Amino acid sequence: MKKAYIISTGTELLLGTTMDSNSVYLSEKLRDIGIKVIGKSTVGDSRIHIKNAFELGLKSADIVISSGGLGPTLDDLTKETACETMGVKLEIVEDELRKLEEFFKRRKRAMPKINKKQAMFPQGAIILKNHLGTAPGMCLKTGEKLVALLPGPPREMKRMYLEELEPVLKNEFELEKNKAIMKTIKVLGPGESQVEEMLGDLMEDNRQYSIALLAQEGEVHIKLTVEGQDFNDSQAIMKQITDEIEKRLQHNVIGYDDETLALKIAELMLKQGKTLALAESCTGGLLAKMITDLPGSSQYFWGSATSYSNSAKTAILNVKTETLEEYGAVSEEVAREMAAGILNNSAADFALAVTGIAGPEGGSEEKPVGTVFICLLNGHGQDYQVKKMSFVGDRDAIRALSAKTALDLLRRYLISGGVHK
Amino acid sequence: MKKAYIISTGTELLLGTTMDSNSVYLSEKLRDIGIKVIGKSTVGDSRIHIKNAFELGLKSADIVISSGGLGPTLDDLTKETACETMGVKLEIVEDELRKLEEFFKRRKRAMPKINKKQAMFPQGAIILKNHLGTAPGMCLKTGEKLVALLPGPPREMKRMYLEELEPVLKNEFELEKNKAIMKTIKVLGPGESQVEEMLGDLMEDNRQYSIALLAQEGEVHIKLTVEGQDFNDSQAIMKQITDEIEKRLQHNVIGYDDETLALKIAELMLKQGKTLALAESCTGGLLAKMITDLPGSSQYFWGSATSYSNSAKTAILNVKTETLEEYGAVSEEVAREMAAGILNNSAADFALAVTGIAGPEGGSEEKPVGTVFICLLNGHGQDYQVKKMSFVGDRDAIRALSAKTALDLLRRYLISGGVHK
Repeated sequence: MKKAYIISTGTELLLGTTMDSNSVYLSEKLRDIGIKVIGKSTVGDSRIHIKNAFELGLKSADIVISSGGLGPTLDDLTKETACETMGVKLEIVEDELRKLEEFFKRRKRAMPKINKKQAMFPQGAIILKNHLGTAPGMCLKTGEKLVALLPGPPREMKRMYLEELEPVLKNEFELEKNKAIMKTIKVLGPGESQVEEMLGDLMEDNRQYSIALLAQEGEVHIKLTVEGQDFNDSQAIMKQITDEIEKRLQHNVIGYDDETLALKIAELMLKQGKTLALAESCTGGLLAKMITDLPGSSQYFWGSATSYSNSAKTAILNVKTETLEEYGAVSEEVAREMAAGILNNSAADFALAVTGIAGPEGGSEEKPVGTVFICLLNGHGQDYQVKKMSFVGDRDAIRALSAKTALDLLRRYLISGGVHK
Repeated sequence: MKKAYIISTGTELLLGTTMDSNSVYLSEKLRDIGIKVIGKSTVGDSRIHIKNAFELGLKSADIVISSGGLGPTLDDLTKETACETMGVKLEIVEDELRKLEEFFKRRKRAMPKINKKQAMFPQGAIILKNHLGTAPGMCLKTGEKLVALLPGPPREMKRMYLEELEPVLKNEFELEKNKAIMKTIKVLGPGESQVEEMLGDLMEDNRQYSIALLAQEGEVHIKLTVEGQDFNDSQAIMKQITDEIEKRLQHNVIGYDDETLALKIAELMLKQGKTLALAESCTGGLLAKMITDLPGSSQYFWGSATSYSNSAKTAILNVKTETLEEYGAVSEEVAREMAAGILNNSAADFALAVTGIAGPEGGSEEKPVGTVFICLLNGHGQDYQVKKMSFVGDRDAIRALSAKTALDLLRRYLISGGVHK
């Protein structure tokens, strides 16, 4: 198994305020393609410490990957220092210089002189494209070792790793043959220990596969790994264990690997040619945001009203003042009127409404913080479903769980084709 | 300023599933007592890699602190390896052995043989008590350097650091006097290299303070550090440099340290007793979410309409069909009608409207992806302000920049008390 060493640069990573999520991402991705991470190092923007880290990396691993320090400013030192450690010289690459100049031209700004160094690379380097910023990465073989430099901003780093560096690594080290296959099954509803009970005997030590559970923003992720010499055998085992887990968890399974609830909803809505409107209260725009995070969501998302005050509930959702007075803003009745209000205003097929108490203030004995009513309304046939939830957690957790549970209600409805009481 | 190097051991930290929160905690705590962390290293449970890390730490810093690998099992190697690196021998400490035996006795279990090594320490070591587990830590001076070993479980590590190690460090290095002060200035508008140009001479190497720039989700963070013998002197220098930066960057400064735009808006709205309504299109709920992330936002946030389709713009915001046809949904005119539409429906004082093209689809030559119109409307006096932006980046970045720029428009208005064209 090839060994990798990861270096994260940036003084901010040493202050105790910023988490180094880049190295965690890279560790996971490298493991997925069968490369073993044997160590990580985090250093500030200092030439001597960056050099020490690259030296240790080159001494102990086959592959050294860094993130950060590729920007134009004086404290961006990674490229210079890595090349110095490898004993190679930087030269202007005209093509890259032109790209940089065009980038600034498009923004109608003159290119600052300091940006020029972003177009300098050593001979023989593979330049890794940056679609989201000005700093290109690079990758260079030095003897039997490979050194790759990625930018620091996580979005830029991730895309560059996936699209530019991973193919080079796979090609260079012929990794495909002996790899473990992995799958994540995402579960919403039962908690971690409930999932453990439902899986029961499957969780026991086993030579063919391993299962790990991970609680993640209200979901439980079941991480499956199958290792073996033969890829077809491994795939057969993975299918068998996945089928068994699905049988036990049924509708609680909300997706696999990179799938999210919003993505699932997109698929189902597009396939069935339906449209959705929202009426939000305690989620305060979060539900609409989760849906519109996806490009193309305008094809099935009509729009939304976030009625954060009672006056907004009456003004834009036609919730009756009497209903608010009699039952309170957090009630099944108001959730139903919110859904009906937005649906009557729109041409959408479905409405989802959410009203609840996200806290930390606003709870009572009868309706404690975490009480949330979710209503799904199918405009055709006036099919209603209301769910009352009692979530536990802080404000962020309650809002996230409310939004996910609402999406999950719609997902189950779309899958089964009807309201389940 | 004394320098520290942090080592985290444990194979699980290299798999990409577990965050190394110990080193983040230690970084923050050490900074608080005036010790500068110059690097961190994470290694698996392997003698050779642990040794490499201690060697690099001893070479580059005054203090080396590790966490993890103090347990009784075969893969707990930190103490043996650290002592080997320092060239000191481990011996049984009778007192500690007795404590361990008592620990097992209280639990009515025989002490496994392998636990014996937890009672072994080199001569001259200060033994650090573990109130929450069986693994004691230790601290040893070797020449001018100090090496401290802490256990891996975060609860045990934190308590041992605070109660046992921190007093030793303070005593050993007379730290209180020599503490660094830090401040982050957050900037929205100019990019990283523009900020660098605006700061110009301030960025040059300087003995009194240091400046680092960090691009963060559309913002640029200016990280200031002032180090010095005298706390009052340091504070005076910090004030001077902060004033100078404010003078140069003016209204582009949106906050300090943990302040966010949403928090600033909350402060200003509460102070001025005003309320806000939103009309979102391309931000799709994100703006409302950012505002309602804060508890208590219902005091100044009336509600919002997310009109993701043209039909929603006419139905809930009364945007005229002719305006949509003549100017298109992404236009100054529609932004103005959206703001007016929500404000007429509400009792709010201000409305913010955002319409734009977040991409990746939907751009044209005239209105490319990233074109965004933001309108601020003050209901009293019908004061309008419209901003046309051309953001660069992917969908997430354009949405985040749109929302932040809208909040910033309101912030500037509230600060200055009027519309600036």
